[in-house]
Amino acid sequence: MAITDFDTSLPSIRQVQNLIKQAAVVEFKLVTGDLLTGKVLWQDPGCVCIADENNQQTTIWKQAIAYFKPKG
Amino acid sequence: MAITDFDTSLPSIRQVQNLIKQAAVVEFKLVTGDLLTGKVLWQDPGCVCIADENNQQTTIWKQAIAYFKPKG
Amino acid sequence: MAITDFDTSLPSIRQVQNLIKQAAVVEFKLVTGDLLTGKVLWQDPGCVCIADENNQQTTIWKQAIAYFKPKG
Amino acid sequence: MAITDFDTSLPSIRQVQNLIKQAAVVEFKLVTGDLLTGKVLWQDPGCVCIADENNQQTTIWKQAIAYFKPKG
Amino acid sequence: MAITDFDTSLPSIRQVQNLIKQAAVVEFKLVTGDLLTGKVLWQDPGCVCIADENNQQTTIWKQAIAYFKPKG
Amino acid sequence: MAITDFDTSLPSIRQVQNLIKQAAVVEFKLVTGDLLTGKVLWQDPGCVCIADENNQQTTIWKQAIAYFKPKG
Repeated sequence: MAITDFDTSLPSIRQVQNLIKQAAVVEFKLVTGDLLTGKVLWQDPGCVCIADENNQQTTIWKQAIAYFKPKG
Repeated sequence: MAITDFDTSLPSIRQVQNLIKQAAVVEFKLVTGDLLTGKVLWQDPGCVCIADENNQQTTIWKQAIAYFKPKG
Repeated sequence: MAITDFDTSLPSIRQVQNLIKQAAVVEFKLVTGDLLTGKVLWQDPGCVCIADENNQQTTIWKQAIAYFKPKG
Repeated sequence: MAITDFDTSLPSIRQVQNLIKQAAVVEFKLVTGDLLTGKVLWQDPGCVCIADENNQQTTIWKQAIAYFKPKG
Repeated sequence: MAITDFDTSLPSIRQVQNLIKQAAVVEFKLVTGDLLTGKVLWQDPGCVCIADENNQQTTIWKQAIAYFKPKG
Repeated sequence: MAITDFDTSLPSIRQVQNLIKQAAVVEFKLVTGDLLTGKVLWQDPGCVCIADENNQQTTIWKQAIAYFKPKG
């Protein structure tokens, strides 16, 4: 995914940025069927990094995301 | 997905824009097999955001969409 | 998918255009395993829209198509 | 897939062209798990069209091909 | 994936580079459902190469990664 | 996949080139779950061609590769 893809004026990019600021807990459903839940630490054009309640970090490839939703 | 992909003259982009205006309920079938239903709030080149009847928002990655159909 | 992808001189694009003109019934097998059948109403670079016998429209993401075949 | 992708000097493109000339029967395994068998009629950057023994044509999206092998 | 994709200033690329330096054991979940574990030897724009405890090397296509997490 | 993708200075491309020279037996795990084993005959930007012990050739789409490992 080219760096030019990362346009922070896009609503979906901004939404993730807001979730980072709010330290919101987010559910990510992946194309594997996995459901990963955590706070979003950062995103870049290819990945989103989350941390669960034990502060275990997982780096999710955006290509594998089906959908996400903020919890609660 | 590059920003140049978002050509609002394309029928598929326009169709989603119309569904937003109409506040139509739409079913999205994803490559995971998930079937998500809701009103479309916005789209950008990479994502479509829907809200269900409880106003829970879900951001769907377009890469994961198999098909959608307006309901009713 | 960039707009430059939509080259109407390509056999596959022309084949879909011909199926639209003929109002042919076409089966689409998707990567989800779904088999959708209908007349093709339009295509653009990213999508194909079909209508079933009840005129219910479904917009198929081309990224999710495995193959299609004209019926009968 | 951009038109620039279709470089007929590439071995894989040439291999399919040779299979067309030879009217060879070819097995295509798709990412759906489907196994389609037939003679290749044509290819373009995005698709391969095959015909089975009843001359039923199927247009396979290249994005959905896992592998192919000439039979016999 | 074009070579221009490999931007070492991106957090996800840097994270993998750090895991290489630390010789950390990493779990990779793939879109196939496979879970591969090993130390990361190298990455390039398209692949990540890992070695398990028997020094058996496996080259993972990045396109097939759903997520990864450092162990322990 | 554009021709510019085929950069022979990349470790993953070179690794496959070395496996070709060594006539090494390689296992390819595909996103379909198929496990194909054989000697690599050639690669191009989009495909890898292998031959099994009966010299049956199979052309694997790189887009469908999850990982590969040299055997033994």
